[in-house]
Amino acid sequence: MFGPDITFLGVERCDLGDPASFEGADVVIVGAPFDGGTSNRPGARFGPMALRQACYLPHDGSRPSLALRVDPLKDLKVLDAGDVECFSGDIETSIRDIEEAVHTISASGAVPLILGGDHTVALPDARGVARHHGYGRVSMIHFDAHADTGDVEFGNLYGHGQPMRRLIESEAIRGDRFLQIGLRGYWPGPDTLDWMAQQRMRSYEMTEIVERGLTECLTEAFAIATDECDGVFLSVDIDVCDPGHAPGTGTPEPGGLSSRQLLDAVRRICYELPVVGIDVVEVSPPYDHADITAYLGNRVILEALSAIARRRETAAGGEPWDPRKPLLEGRRAVPPAAAGL
Amino acid sequence: MFGPDITFLGVERCDLGDPASFEGADVVIVGAPFDGGTSNRPGARFGPMALRQACYLPHDGSRPSLALRVDPLKDLKVLDAGDVECFSGDIETSIRDIEEAVHTISASGAVPLILGGDHTVALPDARGVARHHGYGRVSMIHFDAHADTGDVEFGNLYGHGQPMRRLIESEAIRGDRFLQIGLRGYWPGPDTLDWMAQQRMRSYEMTEIVERGLTECLTEAFAIATDECDGVFLSVDIDVCDPGHAPGTGTPEPGGLSSRQLLDAVRRICYELPVVGIDVVEVSPPYDHADITAYLGNRVILEALSAIARRRETAAGGEPWDPRKPLLEGRRAVPPAAAGL
Amino acid sequence: MFGPDITFLGVERCDLGDPASFEGADVVIVGAPFDGGTSNRPGARFGPMALRQACYLPHDGSRPSLALRVDPLKDLKVLDAGDVECFSGDIETSIRDIEEAVHTISASGAVPLILGGDHTVALPDARGVARHHGYGRVSMIHFDAHADTGDVEFGNLYGHGQPMRRLIESEAIRGDRFLQIGLRGYWPGPDTLDWMAQQRMRSYEMTEIVERGLTECLTEAFAIATDECDGVFLSVDIDVCDPGHAPGTGTPEPGGLSSRQLLDAVRRICYELPVVGIDVVEVSPPYDHADITAYLGNRVILEALSAIARRRETAAGGEPWDPRKPLLEGRRAVPPAAAGL
Amino acid sequence: MFGPDITFLGVERCDLGDPASFEGADVVIVGAPFDGGTSNRPGARFGPMALRQACYLPHDGSRPSLALRVDPLKDLKVLDAGDVECFSGDIETSIRDIEEAVHTISASGAVPLILGGDHTVALPDARGVARHHGYGRVSMIHFDAHADTGDVEFGNLYGHGQPMRRLIESEAIRGDRFLQIGLRGYWPGPDTLDWMAQQRMRSYEMTEIVERGLTECLTEAFAIATDECDGVFLSVDIDVCDPGHAPGTGTPEPGGLSSRQLLDAVRRICYELPVVGIDVVEVSPPYDHADITAYLGNRVILEALSAIARRRETAAGGEPWDPRKPLLEGRRAVPPAAAGL
Amino acid sequence: MFGPDITFLGVERCDLGDPASFEGADVVIVGAPFDGGTSNRPGARFGPMALRQACYLPHDGSRPSLALRVDPLKDLKVLDAGDVECFSGDIETSIRDIEEAVHTISASGAVPLILGGDHTVALPDARGVARHHGYGRVSMIHFDAHADTGDVEFGNLYGHGQPMRRLIESEAIRGDRFLQIGLRGYWPGPDTLDWMAQQRMRSYEMTEIVERGLTECLTEAFAIATDECDGVFLSVDIDVCDPGHAPGTGTPEPGGLSSRQLLDAVRRICYELPVVGIDVVEVSPPYDHADITAYLGNRVILEALSAIARRRETAAGGEPWDPRKPLLEGRRAVPPAAAGL
Amino acid sequence: MFGPDITFLGVERCDLGDPASFEGADVVIVGAPFDGGTSNRPGARFGPMALRQACYLPHDGSRPSLALRVDPLKDLKVLDAGDVECFSGDIETSIRDIEEAVHTISASGAVPLILGGDHTVALPDARGVARHHGYGRVSMIHFDAHADTGDVEFGNLYGHGQPMRRLIESEAIRGDRFLQIGLRGYWPGPDTLDWMAQQRMRSYEMTEIVERGLTECLTEAFAIATDECDGVFLSVDIDVCDPGHAPGTGTPEPGGLSSRQLLDAVRRICYELPVVGIDVVEVSPPYDHADITAYLGNRVILEALSAIARRRETAAGGEPWDPRKPLLEGRRAVPPAAAGL
Repeated sequence: MFGPDITFLGVERCDLGDPASFEGADVVIVGAPFDGGTSNRPGARFGPMALRQACYLPHDGSRPSLALRVDPLKDLKVLDAGDVECFSGDIETSIRDIEEAVHTISASGAVPLILGGDHTVALPDARGVARHHGYGRVSMIHFDAHADTGDVEFGNLYGHGQPMRRLIESEAIRGDRFLQIGLRGYWPGPDTLDWMAQQRMRSYEMTEIVERGLTECLTEAFAIATDECDGVFLSVDIDVCDPGHAPGTGTPEPGGLSSRQLLDAVRRICYELPVVGIDVVEVSPPYDHADITAYLGNRVILEALSAIARRRETAAGGEPWDPRKPLLEGRRAVPPAAAGL
Repeated sequence: MFGPDITFLGVERCDLGDPASFEGADVVIVGAPFDGGTSNRPGARFGPMALRQACYLPHDGSRPSLALRVDPLKDLKVLDAGDVECFSGDIETSIRDIEEAVHTISASGAVPLILGGDHTVALPDARGVARHHGYGRVSMIHFDAHADTGDVEFGNLYGHGQPMRRLIESEAIRGDRFLQIGLRGYWPGPDTLDWMAQQRMRSYEMTEIVERGLTECLTEAFAIATDECDGVFLSVDIDVCDPGHAPGTGTPEPGGLSSRQLLDAVRRICYELPVVGIDVVEVSPPYDHADITAYLGNRVILEALSAIARRRETAAGGEPWDPRKPLLEGRRAVPPAAAGL
Repeated sequence: MFGPDITFLGVERCDLGDPASFEGADVVIVGAPFDGGTSNRPGARFGPMALRQACYLPHDGSRPSLALRVDPLKDLKVLDAGDVECFSGDIETSIRDIEEAVHTISASGAVPLILGGDHTVALPDARGVARHHGYGRVSMIHFDAHADTGDVEFGNLYGHGQPMRRLIESEAIRGDRFLQIGLRGYWPGPDTLDWMAQQRMRSYEMTEIVERGLTECLTEAFAIATDECDGVFLSVDIDVCDPGHAPGTGTPEPGGLSSRQLLDAVRRICYELPVVGIDVVEVSPPYDHADITAYLGNRVILEALSAIARRRETAAGGEPWDPRKPLLEGRRAVPPAAAGL
Repeated sequence: MFGPDITFLGVERCDLGDPASFEGADVVIVGAPFDGGTSNRPGARFGPMALRQACYLPHDGSRPSLALRVDPLKDLKVLDAGDVECFSGDIETSIRDIEEAVHTISASGAVPLILGGDHTVALPDARGVARHHGYGRVSMIHFDAHADTGDVEFGNLYGHGQPMRRLIESEAIRGDRFLQIGLRGYWPGPDTLDWMAQQRMRSYEMTEIVERGLTECLTEAFAIATDECDGVFLSVDIDVCDPGHAPGTGTPEPGGLSSRQLLDAVRRICYELPVVGIDVVEVSPPYDHADITAYLGNRVILEALSAIARRRETAAGGEPWDPRKPLLEGRRAVPPAAAGL
Repeated sequence: MFGPDITFLGVERCDLGDPASFEGADVVIVGAPFDGGTSNRPGARFGPMALRQACYLPHDGSRPSLALRVDPLKDLKVLDAGDVECFSGDIETSIRDIEEAVHTISASGAVPLILGGDHTVALPDARGVARHHGYGRVSMIHFDAHADTGDVEFGNLYGHGQPMRRLIESEAIRGDRFLQIGLRGYWPGPDTLDWMAQQRMRSYEMTEIVERGLTECLTEAFAIATDECDGVFLSVDIDVCDPGHAPGTGTPEPGGLSSRQLLDAVRRICYELPVVGIDVVEVSPPYDHADITAYLGNRVILEALSAIARRRETAAGGEPWDPRKPLLEGRRAVPPAAAGL
Repeated sequence: MFGPDITFLGVERCDLGDPASFEGADVVIVGAPFDGGTSNRPGARFGPMALRQACYLPHDGSRPSLALRVDPLKDLKVLDAGDVECFSGDIETSIRDIEEAVHTISASGAVPLILGGDHTVALPDARGVARHHGYGRVSMIHFDAHADTGDVEFGNLYGHGQPMRRLIESEAIRGDRFLQIGLRGYWPGPDTLDWMAQQRMRSYEMTEIVERGLTECLTEAFAIATDECDGVFLSVDIDVCDPGHAPGTGTPEPGGLSSRQLLDAVRRICYELPVVGIDVVEVSPPYDHADITAYLGNRVILEALSAIARRRETAAGGEPWDPRKPLLEGRRAVPPAAAGL
């Protein structure tokens, strides 16, 4: 929508208005360049543009993962549908149009991967997915510094601080299958926290994560996420990371995860769980430096895609992934010539 | 609305809900921290905050103008009403609320001075003023790189590219009393230009300004602005200046006025014409460097206020302003003691 | 002193010249916008302004802590006395005036919380507190990359590299109750280190912290800090954090703590120890990016205040704080209606 | 070559390896992302990417010029051939490949418009054009702060300080048809200046331009440029502008032209003279702020294209361009309905 | 003093403690890295470091001026004495030590050229010169947005807003030989202006400069400056330029001179008048972008030195400088070989 | 080569053309300001300049290490030979000249410490060392996000993505003594990884490092590095660190080491292993913020030098280094006077 018409790292384009163009896709990427719901620093409208190109390698539709030994952009059929036209001054129309686009993707059998935009878009993102998979049948794993469960803000029901409340109220996502990771700071207040408790949400504040370890917290969350649910929606607000790792965002909260922790967590989720929808939100290029936040968002996406690809490979009988295996172990260590090829 | 609750350079606060608080004011400043209408780079929501404080001098409610020999913050009663609450995701509500605030100020007899926000706010700004002074009785002098006369954009009637069309359509401002200064570049297209011609607008593109000189163009415009109109609304989009002088804005267009030209033009307008409303818009701090755009916007405001103060002083029998007079000429050049005081 | 006259996140103002205005306060915040003692990059004079406003939430004098379940700005009476006027070119007058302000606060029974400024201000900060609580009766916990125990630098006894030496020499703080955490790098040299050893200071260099763990080091330090002392002064130089987490500072030293580590350590100190004074120094906005250093400093302050509030609540019979307790556990998990309310 | 594969503001792509793809083109744009010849700040390799997209309007292959009343991207057939692959570490191969690409375009009858890259590329740019139009038959108008007539630098014949010497030595461009505008500063030294005088170059240093006026200097230069030459090559080094207007460049020299001056001069050249090749070089995004230098470069290109389009329109019998004509004068000022349409 | 020990563009070093080291020098450069007198943004302490190296050419002690046809670093004996040690927290000692250094240079017969530092240093700079040339015998030409004639600020007699008052009070410089160029904005107030008038200062505010032209104003000022004075001190506060051209400064005031205007004015002063001392102040690197302010300051210095060199050449019988003469005119336009050499 | 002629933190200069000037040196620093081999963001040419001066302490040739209790710049004879002249447009000449310089140093008995430059320079760096110590007799410990084992890129054998392949092919370094630490992301692809496996390289990808711990991986690597090799070359690409800690680099890859981890690892390598050559590369100042990447690179160098100094001290009978020992333990804790001195 803003700037040139590009696709994510050069993958093929598709057109949501033309079902044949994305038939058989595994993942369809769509941009939601909306930041009218931001309560503070705007700029996430440029997130889709930044996330699609923040990479120093050629934009050739190929990214072989060192760690997972797959090429997600080749092993999966990943297409980019471009951006939903979002006018930041009209939040209701934007939400409606995004939901429609996401649902179209979901209904085609592909995993929608939405490039935000501010976190407002999680409402149409997850609801669009749930409309296809069934309300209440998709759990949510939500990385964020903020609970995003506000009620009315600035006189409005919608915005980047409220999508999770609207999702639960709409019953698209069950409150007791809502897992939040990385919360911290000074928002929301007690009333909202009480409301969250009443929904039986499970929110891991950073103190608990530090004390118990992220690995243990994730394992616990995974069990909840897969109980009576068929799929998982993964929503990554880049501000879950510490501002040192992700300065380019609207509402930075010190004391967050490191980039490494986020990448490893996303990988594990997409490898171990049946992820049916993903969004990566709140990357705000005007506040970024040397594109480091956009690079991180781009890698979160690639990590997710790689793990989905490896999960499918494993499911199809491939070797389970072993994170301790050395990079070069098991490779064709004898030159073809020496091997008599 | 964003950040701490401050007033313009420390002037006194007033409350638009309490008429007594601004009774007798000459000028009332109000912030319109809205940027949901921006077609490209957002950030103008932080304009009011930046314009109020971009000054290295103490925030003491005093600014003696070297050039005009008045202290606008003391010689005039200037108050700051704070910000209208504007949710950038809801353009229609924001426009309504801003118009209401501006009308309240205008109706009190004061000159409203609105701190944008993106240029969307010129619609409620000028309409709020015209509601008081009479539709068609206020002319417009509009500094901008862009005509802002678009019709529908992003499926919406409102936005920062359309306020001038809506103003003329609503008959708040007559098309043939609409003076535009500084246009340039590659927008809008022929259809919109035809529409503008049909409204008998007078638009000075930079080429004409360079060829004829800004002084001559302004003189010509002043004659139109005061013909059959009782007052003038001055709308300053900071992008009328060259990006070298005003990088912190949403849609920078190279080849604009220098800071000096803009300050001198604003001064002349407010000294020579009966200005009844002012807005300064499109200062976008996230794209600024070393606050130079915010400083410029702050000085545009002070220049306007100083000239209004001097105009009133002259009208009350004071000496007419002579721009060629040396700074120290006519000052009390003999020390009080030597003068026997 | 610089820019508009604001208070810390909107708490009420008080006036150090008017004792009634801060009677009964628990904490009084005061700015020390001095950077004339900086040996390299200046800019910390803008620290107080930045620390007061670096937050994306409304400046409403309320900040409910997710982790500690208190609202420090409401559960405590926190006031802001504004800035001590500090002329950076006159270090001695500035030190004198800051000490006077701090002592005034301390003498009133409140905890002074000083917003630096460069680290020069730790001298008047801690001495002002010790004048009230008794020389030698207050221990120091000092987070910093640097020991700040230089003797004469640039021909002067005062500056941001020397306050700790002056404090010990003046006997305001006992050398053997001086705990330093986070030291690293290449300063000071052997003679100064010998002097420090002679004072029986206990300085935790990063190597020891990495090897033993920060938790163990803190526990050890706490025992020293409370031995024969009635109170603890907490001095946080933001450069104790790694430059990746705190770039906006005067003398960044790679290899420091993460934001998370600092926040957790400050929380623990203020929850477990009788803190009687705090300063947060060396935030230098001109070198910051996207305000991340200012945000970190703001959160250090809120973490300290929250822990003080929780400590008082616990002391008054409240439940001791359990860092492993899930965020929503123990909240009013049954909606009022369902509970028959 | 770097980043996504985009075209200039959305014009159609062509392929230099496929002559049919650019048959009948008026202008073919090609990127030369080379900065291995830079003597100081690199980054011009990202010039093509930045110049193609530095615009806030939709990338829709249309840009109606307000001043010239043409739409250069529609009135001309403008195509974008993408980038020549340039390895910055291999200057000789890069020069060879760029020259080949430019010659291919020139030979097709189109005007090549090269997006630099550092000024090294002017050698293959102008030589590629001269190979088609005839050595010595094309004059050069060269905007720059620097003469770029160095001999051997860093032990090499090629680089961004030497292309003009190599061009004259190769006889591609006659020294006495070499017009330089905007030189200033402290380079080159007397020997090189003597060499330039011997070639009968005509170089307008800023002092002469200030004293005589740019308009007069250009008029004089135009007479030389068209004497015994069939075409003009226009080479615009963005550093001809003052660093305030063009900070994002490798070797900024204070005291240059304003943006407005450069745009007006480029317009006049392309309207009045038979331009057969253009390059815009030395835009270095890593040193830019808020993209203002890239925006300026983009507008230099559009100004050139617009003037070429208007020149052709005038040549085909259209009304000569009058810079003093008001923007809306002569437009369809009666609404279609009122006109009975 | 800060960073590595370098000299201005590679000229030879001298030592003020060793008179032999600067015997026979024409100009001695000395740094005054002091910013303790800044009323707002600090950073000018890094001015000397930045001014010495802000150039993309080799640091080889040679800079042939295109415009003036001299090489000031070779035609004059220019030495660099390094920095005076200035502790920004101790303004009085710093002033004393700078004055001593400047006087030492002046007494040796060389022109001192001081690299600021904030404008505080003009007091010791001009007083150091006047001590040698005679109190009242040196006039002042002062480029600045601000009059710098404040009395007491922050309780102190010294600072960057007061040096000109102290100079006149001390009778080092006569008030009626004090020429100020470029003033504008909202400081100082009437009382200070009255004081200035009483001293018979002549201050050119920007309005007068725009109306009358800078050239005419300078000519008028030159007559005053040379009346009953033997020498001229030139003090250039970089903020005399518009913030678009000089963002990296402490107290930017919109509406100033362009870079080109300042360079031409400095050149003319140093060519036409007997300059006996120079300072260039208020370059603040932390607020600069892409070093453009530092580059401008560096060129101000080179322009001054070049003009001094050309003035001496002319005085020694050389051809007077003609600004309208084309760059290559009069050069050795016949190649040595062709000329039979 | 760029900017002023300085040495690393003020150590003495030597001249590679004059063997006497570096006779007896322990370490000779040399700059390789080459970035023509960069596949994406350039700027590393300014690495040597930045690495030499990125320190807030005086540039006095002394840096007492707190952790290691040595002063590497005094306890070792460390000299700086300045920069090898590298024209970034000519990669082959640059490689040749760098190798020659490094070999000269190595042959003198000193450890060469090369300041990059992009990683292209590792080829001449390590080959220059191996030419002296024997091909195959020096192992490599290589910190990097990237394997740098590409074959032909951009049609060229040389560049910053290929040095490690060329080193192994040339047999300067044995593939099975090549240890890589910190690899991650999406490059290179399977064919290159197979080639690496065939060479029996040992590459620690971040996943393995996170799972097993960096300490254990290093210990394992050390055993390989010292098996049948006499020395170790340490090559540190700053992008091994997370972009949050090292934004100023050409090809940032999220998820890397922290600064602390890198410093500790470098220290351990240089303390435990016989390091015979070091390079620190890919610091790119144009992309840095607040110099934090340059500071990190500077500290990597100091950490390496300190550990070498301590290793020699220990080898000479000094106390082995104990990382758990408190900073002040074992210092002269009794004041000289009290001790009767």
